[in-house]
Amino acid sequence: MKGQNYKMLLAYDGAKFDGWQKQGNTENTIQGRLEMLLSKMTGKTVELAGAGRTDAGVHAMGQVMNVFLDTEKNEEEIQEYMNRYLPEDIAVLSVEKAAERFHSRLNAAGKYYLYRIHNDKVKNPFTRKYCWHIPEKLDMASMKTAAALLTGTHDFRGFCSNKRIKKSTVRTIYHIKIWEESKEIKLEFYGNGFLYHMVRIITGTLVEIGKGELPPEKIEEILKKKDRQLAGITAPAHGLCLQEVKYE
Amino acid sequence: MKGQNYKMLLAYDGAKFDGWQKQGNTENTIQGRLEMLLSKMTGKTVELAGAGRTDAGVHAMGQVMNVFLDTEKNEEEIQEYMNRYLPEDIAVLSVEKAAERFHSRLNAAGKYYLYRIHNDKVKNPFTRKYCWHIPEKLDMASMKTAAALLTGTHDFRGFCSNKRIKKSTVRTIYHIKIWEESKEIKLEFYGNGFLYHMVRIITGTLVEIGKGELPPEKIEEILKKKDRQLAGITAPAHGLCLQEVKYE
Repeated sequence: MKGQNYKMLLAYDGAKFDGWQKQGNTENTIQGRLEMLLSKMTGKTVELAGAGRTDAGVHAMGQVMNVFLDTEKNEEEIQEYMNRYLPEDIAVLSVEKAAERFHSRLNAAGKYYLYRIHNDKVKNPFTRKYCWHIPEKLDMASMKTAAALLTGTHDFRGFCSNKRIKKSTVRTIYHIKIWEESKEIKLEFYGNGFLYHMVRIITGTLVEIGKGELPPEKIEEILKKKDRQLAGITAPAHGLCLQEVKYE
Repeated sequence: MKGQNYKMLLAYDGAKFDGWQKQGNTENTIQGRLEMLLSKMTGKTVELAGAGRTDAGVHAMGQVMNVFLDTEKNEEEIQEYMNRYLPEDIAVLSVEKAAERFHSRLNAAGKYYLYRIHNDKVKNPFTRKYCWHIPEKLDMASMKTAAALLTGTHDFRGFCSNKRIKKSTVRTIYHIKIWEESKEIKLEFYGNGFLYHMVRIITGTLVEIGKGELPPEKIEEILKKKDRQLAGITAPAHGLCLQEVKYE
């Protein structure tokens, strides 16, 4: 018996985990922790799917997962059980029943990611775990020009770390919003899907453009030549957060 | 030679430190770390004074200290040196020359402390280190009534952990503001000075009043009888932050 399909909303501080996805014998992934707990709760092997496979160190405010559970507990009791036994840095924000065909990743229509840069000469002890600290002044205008060139449907292979990818590397970015807010520069990415490291490589490239090390037009060249070597560095994981997953 | 008096503004995440004040051979205090670093910088023994002696685990966004330094470096160079060698959880926000008679604690006219409560059924992985998590609903109206009874000049001995205190325990609280903001209850304390654990005991008492375990009028009894046993628990350190120190 497969059980009932549940959709759950999760938040986690990614600092201490080896990312979302279970990999071999690495138990210290968020998926691994959740599966272990739900297997213990139901007494059966449980497999779950997350909407976004966040990298090691990346955070989530609105990760969505789905999982089939065979349990007597109601939604509230499942949530209470999970929040009682999960570590402090993972929280289950909601649990609801979902249709049998619902799949958190395959049905996702769009994802919001937020990248936070602490842009000030002096470091900030309170945001240091959630922001990339860049002391140099960044040129917001060039960054916005470059971001506009990335918006739309493109082959983003040049902004992907996985060299041997066989599937399509075409994705659509609906928008990249860039704004300043109390010594932080925030970059919001909304798209139908993102390749491995794509948000972080785009951010690293936009920062090099903001520093004047690359011209905004470099984006066109990277998109055209599809060469990761032309793009900027991969921005550190700890500045990134999966904010929200949209379904139709 | 005593050197030049400097006034410095500091921010720190208090989680990993044994509080502000140097105590015997405890090197892991914020004062201790700063003195060691400045002694290394100047090659001379340095002693410094902080405006507020924050407890172990308490944070600061606006701690003020003063220190006499005999150095060739200018203010900006001192700040850069300190931020380069201090741990990630302490930041020097500004350094300026001060009059010889300036003393960060003795001249302080008022201090702002902020206590943050995360008031939601579900824990929050991102604010867990800066908020006291209270899942039960709190009655804000009773808390505000009680806060009003604390405002003004009173003998706060009943809200102090130090039993053998010989100095005056009379202090003036100019205001206690309590408001809700995105699942947090914030308590802002502004006063001319606070006794040992005073803000945390007041917060713990206000929370018990918010839960309906004590009536708001209990405040009057505690102030009158000056008995710590009548007040509520000492709220955890990690929810408290020294926000700002005012000088005339």
